[in-house]
Amino acid sequence: MRLLVVNPNTNRDMTAQIGRIARECAGYGTEVVALSPEAGPLSIECHADEAVAAAHTLELLAQPDYRGFDAYVIACFGDPALFAAREMLTGPVIGIAEAAFHVATMIATRFSIVTSLQRTSIMSEELLVRYGFALRCRRVRAVDLPVAEIAGDHAASGQAIAAECRRARDEDQIGAIVLGCAGMAHLADEITTSLGLPVIDGVAAGVRLAEALVGGGWKTSKFGDFAAPPTRQGTGP
Amino acid sequence: MRLLVVNPNTNRDMTAQIGRIARECAGYGTEVVALSPEAGPLSIECHADEAVAAAHTLELLAQPDYRGFDAYVIACFGDPALFAAREMLTGPVIGIAEAAFHVATMIATRFSIVTSLQRTSIMSEELLVRYGFALRCRRVRAVDLPVAEIAGDHAASGQAIAAECRRARDEDQIGAIVLGCAGMAHLADEITTSLGLPVIDGVAAGVRLAEALVGGGWKTSKFGDFAAPPTRQGTGP
Amino acid sequence: MRLLVVNPNTNRDMTAQIGRIARECAGYGTEVVALSPEAGPLSIECHADEAVAAAHTLELLAQPDYRGFDAYVIACFGDPALFAAREMLTGPVIGIAEAAFHVATMIATRFSIVTSLQRTSIMSEELLVRYGFALRCRRVRAVDLPVAEIAGDHAASGQAIAAECRRARDEDQIGAIVLGCAGMAHLADEITTSLGLPVIDGVAAGVRLAEALVGGGWKTSKFGDFAAPPTRQGTGP
Amino acid sequence: MRLLVVNPNTNRDMTAQIGRIARECAGYGTEVVALSPEAGPLSIECHADEAVAAAHTLELLAQPDYRGFDAYVIACFGDPALFAAREMLTGPVIGIAEAAFHVATMIATRFSIVTSLQRTSIMSEELLVRYGFALRCRRVRAVDLPVAEIAGDHAASGQAIAAECRRARDEDQIGAIVLGCAGMAHLADEITTSLGLPVIDGVAAGVRLAEALVGGGWKTSKFGDFAAPPTRQGTGP
Amino acid sequence: MRLLVVNPNTNRDMTAQIGRIARECAGYGTEVVALSPEAGPLSIECHADEAVAAAHTLELLAQPDYRGFDAYVIACFGDPALFAAREMLTGPVIGIAEAAFHVATMIATRFSIVTSLQRTSIMSEELLVRYGFALRCRRVRAVDLPVAEIAGDHAASGQAIAAECRRARDEDQIGAIVLGCAGMAHLADEITTSLGLPVIDGVAAGVRLAEALVGGGWKTSKFGDFAAPPTRQGTGP
Amino acid sequence: MRLLVVNPNTNRDMTAQIGRIARECAGYGTEVVALSPEAGPLSIECHADEAVAAAHTLELLAQPDYRGFDAYVIACFGDPALFAAREMLTGPVIGIAEAAFHVATMIATRFSIVTSLQRTSIMSEELLVRYGFALRCRRVRAVDLPVAEIAGDHAASGQAIAAECRRARDEDQIGAIVLGCAGMAHLADEITTSLGLPVIDGVAAGVRLAEALVGGGWKTSKFGDFAAPPTRQGTGP
Repeated sequence: MRLLVVNPNTNRDMTAQIGRIARECAGYGTEVVALSPEAGPLSIECHADEAVAAAHTLELLAQPDYRGFDAYVIACFGDPALFAAREMLTGPVIGIAEAAFHVATMIATRFSIVTSLQRTSIMSEELLVRYGFALRCRRVRAVDLPVAEIAGDHAASGQAIAAECRRARDEDQIGAIVLGCAGMAHLADEITTSLGLPVIDGVAAGVRLAEALVGGGWKTSKFGDFAAPPTRQGTGP
Repeated sequence: MRLLVVNPNTNRDMTAQIGRIARECAGYGTEVVALSPEAGPLSIECHADEAVAAAHTLELLAQPDYRGFDAYVIACFGDPALFAAREMLTGPVIGIAEAAFHVATMIATRFSIVTSLQRTSIMSEELLVRYGFALRCRRVRAVDLPVAEIAGDHAASGQAIAAECRRARDEDQIGAIVLGCAGMAHLADEITTSLGLPVIDGVAAGVRLAEALVGGGWKTSKFGDFAAPPTRQGTGP
Repeated sequence: MRLLVVNPNTNRDMTAQIGRIARECAGYGTEVVALSPEAGPLSIECHADEAVAAAHTLELLAQPDYRGFDAYVIACFGDPALFAAREMLTGPVIGIAEAAFHVATMIATRFSIVTSLQRTSIMSEELLVRYGFALRCRRVRAVDLPVAEIAGDHAASGQAIAAECRRARDEDQIGAIVLGCAGMAHLADEITTSLGLPVIDGVAAGVRLAEALVGGGWKTSKFGDFAAPPTRQGTGP
Repeated sequence: MRLLVVNPNTNRDMTAQIGRIARECAGYGTEVVALSPEAGPLSIECHADEAVAAAHTLELLAQPDYRGFDAYVIACFGDPALFAAREMLTGPVIGIAEAAFHVATMIATRFSIVTSLQRTSIMSEELLVRYGFALRCRRVRAVDLPVAEIAGDHAASGQAIAAECRRARDEDQIGAIVLGCAGMAHLADEITTSLGLPVIDGVAAGVRLAEALVGGGWKTSKFGDFAAPPTRQGTGP
Repeated sequence: MRLLVVNPNTNRDMTAQIGRIARECAGYGTEVVALSPEAGPLSIECHADEAVAAAHTLELLAQPDYRGFDAYVIACFGDPALFAAREMLTGPVIGIAEAAFHVATMIATRFSIVTSLQRTSIMSEELLVRYGFALRCRRVRAVDLPVAEIAGDHAASGQAIAAECRRARDEDQIGAIVLGCAGMAHLADEITTSLGLPVIDGVAAGVRLAEALVGGGWKTSKFGDFAAPPTRQGTGP
Repeated sequence: MRLLVVNPNTNRDMTAQIGRIARECAGYGTEVVALSPEAGPLSIECHADEAVAAAHTLELLAQPDYRGFDAYVIACFGDPALFAAREMLTGPVIGIAEAAFHVATMIATRFSIVTSLQRTSIMSEELLVRYGFALRCRRVRAVDLPVAEIAGDHAASGQAIAAECRRARDEDQIGAIVLGCAGMAHLADEITTSLGLPVIDGVAAGVRLAEALVGGGWKTSKFGDFAAPPTRQGTGP
């Protein structure tokens, strides 16, 4: 199957990193293409970034070249443009926040999130309520480091994230941790090993769930609010 | 005070209509400017329309000319770009869905929504949950007419909306009705009179609540997640 | 417009103070009358105080002299008699707790409450659930000072309140603070300035929202449970 | 044990009827005194009735003669003054709505309420949310008959109530029905028999639960918000 | 009346202790039989223990000798097999967790739970959500001692439980404490006295509520999902 | 990978059917073993069936032969013994109700459930609340046919299920349907095709999600309440 992983920000190093991780964790026979929009924010660190990145992500997905993939992963923890992308496409579309929540709740009764910035943790809270996972998440914790620094894999940021995960494990009465930023994906295995509880990266979760949906033959519903957008004169994107 | 009312779609007749209504219902001393983005969907009738319109709305609000208004109303019932606009601006920003819910709950214990399309009623449901008004709204009803037809003020669409409001009054055990589309604003007074219960148009609600916030000196909080977006190289909009 | 602000307790100094603040924050053309019931508790510091004050407030509002106001504000943070007053009157009736919550959620995603007594904070919690704002309030904090001391504007109580607001700002991940007692109204501006985030006083919020409702022509619904009470022999108040 | 059953309205026939039922369903050794306040509404059919009756109920309970009962039942389905009465008294105080909900959820997974007036069913809904039983109640149904007519035990009103209970049984996927008015108490046994599912009267439920609390030695907590009201000059009731 | 108290674990000392307490707190005329299954876990300290104990409890209750009791109490804080037992029996069946929650909410607005093991506190949380008491419980606290040690009434475990109750009283803003293990029942009175707020043991609560239901004539509904299990070939238990 | 699919009831024809479907929908390289317990109910049609089947399912899973599978699916729509099985095993364990909810919410915003018996639909409701999917499920519908008849693949039962699914599609404002019984699994594809919206069978969903978890390296958390049961003398299963 062909899987398109979209990094909604325009940091191409991060896109490459996400693509690498997606390929590493994909199953046999999954071909991963990782892309990011031409324009938009370099990182998604506030409500406005998310709104702008959402539109650019949709623009990318609307291109004929990309419509024929078997499945799609939106690799930003705010799941920008998720419902809109589902409308435009027939293959399943998975957001990495959503994906991580699904995986976490299948292996633990309660989890915490460790994310990048304090100011964006409200977005995680809103997603938890929207999707129905609010009761299952104990706490959203932030290391308060910018996305670029995290994704750049600096030793200091990795240590800060690991330390916050340790605090989550010791204080939150949880069974699993969700990493709340696509730029943290490369840290999941190492922290899992060192802390002794599952630390879930949404990129890996999104890839594996996308494969599960394609394997099971489940496509995005085209009945109801995910039906293709109505055709009107002058309508974008 | 100077109030900027943004119609997030690009239907200029509708923008003019919204501006007219905003001016009619504004208080003494409020100067209303009604605008719509240069580009984007002609009407907002699905998730994708909303995401695209949100970005264009932000682009408009980011222009230096528009940053100095005392307050802002986003005149589309999905409240697109609301949180992002709050980040970018210091004057209060009100969405018309939110505004209508606030007004409805100050004059009735329960309300219903009468909106345009069945497929977009899910957006109203999500807003109700997000804002906290889910328990106070009995039902989201749709007349299943396109926005253009509603805003065009055709007799038939007006009658369909009035009839649905009547059913809401008679079946839903409510005290008020919220009109779920900026294009319905011109109908509120007439249906209020004919049905004998308050029928609330979000444009009027947004204008009056914006005046209240400006009058009371309350601006958008710049502490926490509505602080100005972080400055980074290459970031839009 | 003529606005009746009712202080449900019988502390006339506090009534005068509330009237003064209401007048200061009212818009041009709003005439404020501030009253309190003849009888009832001197301050509202427990469930029983609230129940007794509610009945006296209704008795006051039932007098023919007071029925003709354009709008009403009930200036006690428990919103006593709010729904009952709406039944009896046609002009809009606003409670100051409710008003502060509405304003807070239009300028911030999350807020905390700083109230007087620990024992009455449960009433704030119940209101948050009842109105639908529970998810948007992080925490109810109490300085545990009696209402009389707070309203008396002693330096010590003002400092205690400001200190608790500072803790709320620093610990609660909020964007705004709601002052949970009509007797704190005079402190809002000063604490807003010193802390750098909006500190909302319900009296001002109630006055401005009442003006908004009157301006917009929205009256209390007389359809459903806010219809005028049924006429029966021997029925009070 | 000595049990004081307060009918918060001033309909003395109804007080006598409630007393009779309370005595019939009380256990061996329980002495029932049934009282109603001197003043207040003849029936409780709206928010204002409830607020006024609450204050009169408190006034009655504050009299030295009545403070020494072992337990108290407030026999109106809105549970007026419940929390305030708990503050003022040390013996347990039970509301009949609350009592019926407790009993219903111990013998069925889901129940419906059949109450008197449509306009007061909102009060039942608010109680369900406040107490935590909202998910366990399927529907609040009203026969839309005044309380006086119901309590008067007219054949027609009894039939209307039985018919509504039958519809609840057949349509609501429930295991039990709660009668939503003290004036319906005399009908519970007969409808239980004819419909074949438990129909719960709150007066009986309140009496039996009061006995259980007294028997078990559980008194109203005097720690926290039910501690005795603070003593202040000039404070009622 | 004849009351069967089932201890779902197979620790016979604990069964005897539970029986002793049930008898002490039962009303006049209540004959208590305390039993435990022949097989199953010695204590219930995890999800698997609970599932296994549930089946053994049902097996015991299915025996003809035990079907004719007037009421039943399931004396384990996870309320194992509660809904299933209700299906099989006509007399009311009460779980001790449920019972304690009912009692706590009739005498306090908020309570905390002090339970045995950290790992089982998730079960209490799930029950609180399932029954509807989640908003009324502030916190689930665990002393992290095995059930056997608690029930054995060692001085050290009693002190640990009392100390945790004290912390709950001082930190949780509650009016009552629920003891979250049948093995703690003997401590309730002593801690109530020393801390000055009601500390509720579910065994006593279950016994008294069972008496209330029998006294009021309320049996488990046989309409809906508690109707007797369908008869099929080869079906257990 | 080796996947153990447990049918918790003892109907061996149904076990064979479930195994066949699991094999058909499994991915390349997945070896499916389908088993059912030696004893227990022939079908799971009430609370008691579920409790008994849960214990037998655990007994099966506790056998050394079955502990070494890579993953487990519990193929009954009540997800019996799910949390207990997770405690006992290290490989991921998926319930088919849970699995179907996860899949449904990744391809639609709202779904309905079509299940077998009216009396067991309460179990689906409780699972929806417990897992957090309550807001996303519109309605639980029952065809009121026994499981045996459904699994037997009689034409009449297939038609009844298809007809109920059609009603769900036309009345419930949904985008997907979840089949609420393992015995309906063989109908999913056909009804999907005839109705034009995704109809999700939990067996297929469970198999594909189990593969995703194994592929991604996520095992059941052994930190917290899913840690291996404590070792005690005399403890089952």
